[in-house]
Amino acid sequence: MEKREEAKEVVEDEEQVVNPWEVSAKDGGKIDYDKLIDKFGCQRLDDSLIQRVQRLTNRPAHVFLRRGVFFAHRDFSDILDAYEKGQKFYLYTGRGPSSEALHLGHLIPFMFTKYLQDAFKVPLVIQLTDDEKCMWKNLSVEESQRLARENAKDIIACGFDVSKTFIFSDFDYVGGAFYKNMVKVAKCVTYNKVVGIFGFTGEDHIGKVSFPPVQDPYFRMTRDVAPRIGYHKPALIESSFFPALQGENGKMSASDPNSAIYVTDSAKEITNKINRYAFSGGQDSIELHRKYGANLEVDIPFKYLGFFLDDDAELERIREEYGSGRMLTGEVKKRLTEVLTDLVERHRRARALVTDEMVDAFMAVRPLPNMFN
Amino acid sequence: MEKREEAKEVVEDEEQVVNPWEVSAKDGGKIDYDKLIDKFGCQRLDDSLIQRVQRLTNRPAHVFLRRGVFFAHRDFSDILDAYEKGQKFYLYTGRGPSSEALHLGHLIPFMFTKYLQDAFKVPLVIQLTDDEKCMWKNLSVEESQRLARENAKDIIACGFDVSKTFIFSDFDYVGGAFYKNMVKVAKCVTYNKVVGIFGFTGEDHIGKVSFPPVQDPYFRMTRDVAPRIGYHKPALIESSFFPALQGENGKMSASDPNSAIYVTDSAKEITNKINRYAFSGGQDSIELHRKYGANLEVDIPFKYLGFFLDDDAELERIREEYGSGRMLTGEVKKRLTEVLTDLVERHRRARALVTDEMVDAFMAVRPLPNMFN
Repeated sequence: MEKREEAKEVVEDEEQVVNPWEVSAKDGGKIDYDKLIDKFGCQRLDDSLIQRVQRLTNRPAHVFLRRGVFFAHRDFSDILDAYEKGQKFYLYTGRGPSSEALHLGHLIPFMFTKYLQDAFKVPLVIQLTDDEKCMWKNLSVEESQRLARENAKDIIACGFDVSKTFIFSDFDYVGGAFYKNMVKVAKCVTYNKVVGIFGFTGEDHIGKVSFPPVQDPYFRMTRDVAPRIGYHKPALIESSFFPALQGENGKMSASDPNSAIYVTDSAKEITNKINRYAFSGGQDSIELHRKYGANLEVDIPFKYLGFFLDDDAELERIREEYGSGRMLTGEVKKRLTEVLTDLVERHRRARALVTDEMVDAFMAVRPLPNMFN
Repeated sequence: MEKREEAKEVVEDEEQVVNPWEVSAKDGGKIDYDKLIDKFGCQRLDDSLIQRVQRLTNRPAHVFLRRGVFFAHRDFSDILDAYEKGQKFYLYTGRGPSSEALHLGHLIPFMFTKYLQDAFKVPLVIQLTDDEKCMWKNLSVEESQRLARENAKDIIACGFDVSKTFIFSDFDYVGGAFYKNMVKVAKCVTYNKVVGIFGFTGEDHIGKVSFPPVQDPYFRMTRDVAPRIGYHKPALIESSFFPALQGENGKMSASDPNSAIYVTDSAKEITNKINRYAFSGGQDSIELHRKYGANLEVDIPFKYLGFFLDDDAELERIREEYGSGRMLTGEVKKRLTEVLTDLVERHRRARALVTDEMVDAFMAVRPLPNMFN
């Protein structure tokens, strides 16, 4: 099962661009997720499926499921069938470690994966593609590996179960069965094919051209190739994009620290970023706001609460009050500041407890005798 | 130091084609080695250099040096300088294991490498590119690895010193520092560049496109890239092509067992192949032969003796006698049969003594404390 990464492949038409390196809608509009589902040929993760997850796992669906953050899938129902029959499966996700600190958008797949691991009690493999970042971001091998280890600490801080979780760095782990698999996959994929999927040019270096077989997240390719070399297709769960503070059409970018809230931000920085940069759907004056209410479709504080405020009832109340103009942007921002300060503070405390020995334990190549218990 | 493989890169003009997969001269002519040296920008391995090798190693130059089988080099004199100063260097060669049994052409670089190891007393690394053959020949991973191990036995039978020699299979050994290096190299080489060097098309799979960083023998590329990632350029020694039995313009091909003599051929097969298939430069009748003598430029039995008959005086005598018509093709073929039967029989005996434990010993990832002794 996988998240987010599927949509990393290429959809480009006159209205929106979604590829591994860029997400944008035309004319400041929003990403049309129905169109994405249509273009990518995946299925909506609809209410009946969510109900089935709740029944099978005997616990409430995660807020990211209830609120449609994870909105689409491929073959997820096959996984639920397997689970129902007591068949084994495992979770896979990954991260390209290009930055020192994660922002909230980076945390989302790991928070959700933690829920999936707890709910289904299954093994989890987390791939850190330090080789990818070395090649795409022009980092040195050593710096990419250092970032992979730093990011592993943030990931471990999300609370994964070490008896069921294997985290690896490509630079450390490529070889053996992994390398044999890379060769098998590479044989199935022509240059023209990767140009079609990823848009490489002749001036791209051959590291990029040959990278897709290294990284599972190139899922449309993987789903094409897997059956040809005797494996199951991976089932996928796909999330919507987490917006920048500046709005749906902004970009969370390491070069603009004010575009995102990082897990290393202080309470003061979080307050400041939300107050100064979070795009508001509120009206220009209190009078107009009281009259028309906030435009929740574009309001970032409300959207962020949709991701991170657990309490459904409170979120509904804010939707009502803010949308009708009875609640002001300042109040919503204040609530979001509380929620995110709390989230980041909890993450920071958890991360501070992650020792080098714990990183070694998660990354050790080892038997996992209890991985399905 | 390297052999043979340099010329595996691409030279194509109106008169001859030399690339990693094809060697041919126009109109049945011979490969023009002066032109190759010129095109590839390497240096002739001339007599003064050979004299220097003899002086430094205090032993006669190998027959392959004396007879110009290894005819060109890059920076070999730098290696001799290093040797003279007591600086360390090592030998590297390899083989793509695509066939069960080696033929005589395959043995040449290993016979010469054995001489170099003995003469300079240096470590040797032998790369078996089973991944390459898996991708190019469409062999399975398992079959490629099996062939690598079989070929390793033939290589070990050439007499290498296990305390100074490391043989590895890519499928087993890619990973760690090797993989990091592959990524560093890949970053330096664009798709357009490999198309220029190797002639890939868009329909080639990305395994081929990305393979050059795995294998050192793509030496012009390696010599371009090595200094950019902080390494010495490899020095190279290049051999001429070993001709097929059918003549300079024939091909030694696994699909035509009569095109080459294999180390698995019986004495009877060797006799038969030489008598029936070895292209003769002798004249059509004894009378004409006595009158004009053999054309040694195209005569395969004489060429093969140039590779494998150790005795310089005897070779000179045959050149005289056969070239002047006093000696007949049948006599030369008989002498070649003796030489090759002896060579193959010695190889077979040596190979029979190579146990699985010896293969394991050569291929073990291990310290080599005496590698420079």
